[in-house]
Amino acid sequence: MRHDIAWPGSVRPGGRTARVRESVLQVAGDLLADHGYPALDLAEVAATAGVGKTTVYRRWRTPAGLVADLLVEMAEQSLPRADTGSLLDDLTANARLVAGTLTDPRQGNLFRAVIAAATGDESTATALHTFYDIRLTEWAPCVEDAVARGEAPPGTDPRAVLSAVSGPLYYRLLASGDPIDEAAADAAARAATIAAAAGAFVS
Amino acid sequence: MRHDIAWPGSVRPGGRTARVRESVLQVAGDLLADHGYPALDLAEVAATAGVGKTTVYRRWRTPAGLVADLLVEMAEQSLPRADTGSLLDDLTANARLVAGTLTDPRQGNLFRAVIAAATGDESTATALHTFYDIRLTEWAPCVEDAVARGEAPPGTDPRAVLSAVSGPLYYRLLASGDPIDEAAADAAARAATIAAAAGAFVS
Repeated sequence: MRHDIAWPGSVRPGGRTARVRESVLQVAGDLLADHGYPALDLAEVAATAGVGKTTVYRRWRTPAGLVADLLVEMAEQSLPRADTGSLLDDLTANARLVAGTLTDPRQGNLFRAVIAAATGDESTATALHTFYDIRLTEWAPCVEDAVARGEAPPGTDPRAVLSAVSGPLYYRLLASGDPIDEAAADAAARAATIAAAAGAFVS
Repeated sequence: MRHDIAWPGSVRPGGRTARVRESVLQVAGDLLADHGYPALDLAEVAATAGVGKTTVYRRWRTPAGLVADLLVEMAEQSLPRADTGSLLDDLTANARLVAGTLTDPRQGNLFRAVIAAATGDESTATALHTFYDIRLTEWAPCVEDAVARGEAPPGTDPRAVLSAVSGPLYYRLLASGDPIDEAAADAAARAATIAAAAGAFVS
């Protein structure tokens, strides 16, 4: 067997390995956004990305493997937490970021496709939960800092607060179909801030 | 063509048409819950339900048609709104109902499968949005009554309040994988009630 890609990480970041990954994940993301998980075919990804089929099969193995690595890349490229000095402003930034992502045509479809894939595949579900764990961990200090500033009582659960911000927006995307606009984002942030201040998320 | 099923509704409720529908939707729901949307095969549904294949193809036509009718039946069989005289208690009942549904092994898998199917099919998405529209409309009077009682300010948007209750629970189911327990349900209801009282959902 030819080893044209050494893995893991024997080529420096930005080198050929990184370029191959970038191309492959870009194509995989496009296919998912345009046609959903059932259309994610490794041979087609390889051909469109201009990468050897053997390379793609050896490194990512299955469509689920591709989605898992795409989620790793999405977490790597996500924006850092806001740090405005106010819980309301931090959560509003978070809510607008989530709303912007979910309503972006490519990103919204991509999230829908990945979430749908996770409902039918345990390893994809694990990769998806890891993605959200990274995002929730990144933003948790917004709530911890708010507790330190006295904006919410000690014992306030940061993940519960952040889930109260994102939840209504995901519910619109995946369940009700109600519009995800700035008013919905701001209301989610406002509601979570008020409830957190009143101790609703003390666990 | 043989017309062994007259449709719509020329046979009385509880008659043969209703029995056939009940059997077919039961089998379709089982298949979805156990194996997901890709496994929903009309011929297999017909065989398992003991119904003629022609009947199933003529009446439901496609897997998406079956899912749409299943969502109609799920809406028909859903519980009515709570009416406790208190917004917190009504929303707590709503949150516990949603949490109980999403954590029930069959129902939780069924919702996951239907939501996943809706990401890839426009007619299924429309049927799903109709299902949630019916549920949100059923429960909206809880918020309207609370406004009338002075528990929340005039102009409070009932759908926004109810989305704030369900949203964090669906976010756990479909995104983060965090546990959906009674504490999470009660916190969602408590947070939405406090935020509604403070005017966070005035549109």
